[in-house]
Amino acid sequence: MKLEQDIELRVREEDYINLNPLQSGGRTYPETRKAITSYVDGYSVCDWCSGALNCIRKPPIQSFLEDVASFLGMDSALLTNGCREAKYAVMHSLASSKDFVVVDGNAHYSTFVAAERAGLRVEQLDSTGEPEYLVDPEAFGDKIREIKKIHGKTPKLAVLTHVDGSYGNLVDAEKAASACHREGVPLLLNTAYSSGRMRVDGSRLGVDFIAASCHKSWAAGGGNIGLLAANGEWAEKVFRNSSDYEIKPLEILGCSTRGAAAVALLASYPKVKERVGKWGGEVDKARRLMAGLEELGVRQLGEKPTNHDLNFLQSDVLYEISQTHKKKNYYLYSELKKRGIIGIKPGLTRHFKISTYGKTEKQCDHILWAFRDIIEKHGP
Amino acid sequence: MKLEQDIELRVREEDYINLNPLQSGGRTYPETRKAITSYVDGYSVCDWCSGALNCIRKPPIQSFLEDVASFLGMDSALLTNGCREAKYAVMHSLASSKDFVVVDGNAHYSTFVAAERAGLRVEQLDSTGEPEYLVDPEAFGDKIREIKKIHGKTPKLAVLTHVDGSYGNLVDAEKAASACHREGVPLLLNTAYSSGRMRVDGSRLGVDFIAASCHKSWAAGGGNIGLLAANGEWAEKVFRNSSDYEIKPLEILGCSTRGAAAVALLASYPKVKERVGKWGGEVDKARRLMAGLEELGVRQLGEKPTNHDLNFLQSDVLYEISQTHKKKNYYLYSELKKRGIIGIKPGLTRHFKISTYGKTEKQCDHILWAFRDIIEKHGP
Repeated sequence: MKLEQDIELRVREEDYINLNPLQSGGRTYPETRKAITSYVDGYSVCDWCSGALNCIRKPPIQSFLEDVASFLGMDSALLTNGCREAKYAVMHSLASSKDFVVVDGNAHYSTFVAAERAGLRVEQLDSTGEPEYLVDPEAFGDKIREIKKIHGKTPKLAVLTHVDGSYGNLVDAEKAASACHREGVPLLLNTAYSSGRMRVDGSRLGVDFIAASCHKSWAAGGGNIGLLAANGEWAEKVFRNSSDYEIKPLEILGCSTRGAAAVALLASYPKVKERVGKWGGEVDKARRLMAGLEELGVRQLGEKPTNHDLNFLQSDVLYEISQTHKKKNYYLYSELKKRGIIGIKPGLTRHFKISTYGKTEKQCDHILWAFRDIIEKHGP
Repeated sequence: MKLEQDIELRVREEDYINLNPLQSGGRTYPETRKAITSYVDGYSVCDWCSGALNCIRKPPIQSFLEDVASFLGMDSALLTNGCREAKYAVMHSLASSKDFVVVDGNAHYSTFVAAERAGLRVEQLDSTGEPEYLVDPEAFGDKIREIKKIHGKTPKLAVLTHVDGSYGNLVDAEKAASACHREGVPLLLNTAYSSGRMRVDGSRLGVDFIAASCHKSWAAGGGNIGLLAANGEWAEKVFRNSSDYEIKPLEILGCSTRGAAAVALLASYPKVKERVGKWGGEVDKARRLMAGLEELGVRQLGEKPTNHDLNFLQSDVLYEISQTHKKKNYYLYSELKKRGIIGIKPGLTRHFKISTYGKTEKQCDHILWAFRDIIEKHGP
């Protein structure tokens, strides 16, 4: 194996319109890339270590954490290696083996995996299924009461996927938090696809924990990095320090994401704070594109009209083309790339996700044109 | 807070000789920085996701993991978010609350923190203390027998710090593994300061697990990234997949370090495989510098002669200067920086660590000259 020859340099995002929802909100700004580049040559946020990651003043991690906690409407925050690691930290702190956790009907696989690693039993709410896959936030109350009745145990935690990664459905977290609190259960809000794109105010929503994915939605792409924010006594519990190493938070093993990703997040943060104010425009763009695609026979699943840049498409017309096209089911990836568009998973034609986040109006028009052109040239 | 103004770009390593042992083995090669730069604009190792991080073929993570397992003389390997996360994964898989883990006398704080997070009781071997702080690998056997006798329980794991981060002492892992195995206890070798710098062959040493720190010692600086390698049944246990998501390894929550740090490791790996063959030269350089410093009255603690680039110095003469210098205890950092040298923790004068890893002979001569010059100009 000659690895040096196998690693292709990645295509610069500037050269293509990238529809991948995993990447659109994590795209770095030029000044962020400059900061990363100056920090990729050593274990460098530790140059001025003052005992633990969350206390570092240069780069200003400590003041960032204070500021970001308030930006999220929460009491305090810590850096984590990612959103899933934040969810695991909460589950591991609050619950013991065989305890219950309640999750919504569109929960991400990493929520289940985190619960399984923590030894917990997961009870999932239903969604309304096709075509909208809606989650009823009030249903948390019913499910918790059901668990109490059947198992005689109160679940230790509820997890709501604020915006899910499949359909981009936005759920009313305030209602979910009230429903959980009436039953004495704290709520963790998984904001992998919301905070960093749209304003998320934990104090208004009344949630107890917020987990964020900063490589997904806070323009800190490159390394994996997340945030965990918590309130009051919950923060004390989950952010507890080691008993022997008294300034080292136990659930992040002392110091979590201790490199360029932390610097990337700090560098992008001022722009992130600004951009959440422009969320309405992002939703408008997505709605316009969805309307255009529906006219071409490409169907949007999930709530309608959409409230998010991430959307799930179902397309018989694009699938039918794959049956006769010489590139088979890889044709869509290839035809879009020819037209300057990447980010749809290679091989998919019938069901796939796209994100319009950060695209200009003109780019959205181009995306619509590309789909129309492909259907006209290759369709029945 | 104006964060955009607070983040200073970091000094390029090329401009200074960096003595920081946390950073010297993690320094990236120019081609690695090029690869990182092309990957810092999105969640990018997932472009060609085939279900889980360890299966990705482009970039070639899957074949890297096969190759690196054999490079380490182990059956299989997984990427982790760092070395501490690898240790926690093993502890969490093998032991339950109140179980015992045995660690050596120079164990890193993150070993204790990982054990505490996993709810374990830690029993530590003694070291010989000042001046050499040696660890007796045979002592694992005595300690395990003592725990069995007093508590009636066999420890679930032993952890040996192959080279510790304080004194740079290299311990005979083969002897430790035999001692543990005679008592039926598996051994995890913490190679944060060994693998990636020197050859570590798990099959020759007979260890059951190897944890590595790739931002520290595998030239993958920038993001935090580690490796966990394991053998046979232990690998099956620790690398078990989720029961619901059958290709997602549970202990890394499906996918661990999923960004530019993984690409950095892959890009540096061919050079790392090559450089471990030159370890003898690194030790020679360190020994020569230590001998020179001792002549200046700067004392090397830890085993003598040293077997590692990382060394702990104790210096009354440098401390005495701080008592009268106008910059007080910050003078040493400042005087070294004036002479083109960084990496000693600001404020330290009496006890500090330095690493000669990757320096040229000429740079080592310059380091010795700088210490001599400072002592001559400012000393008594």
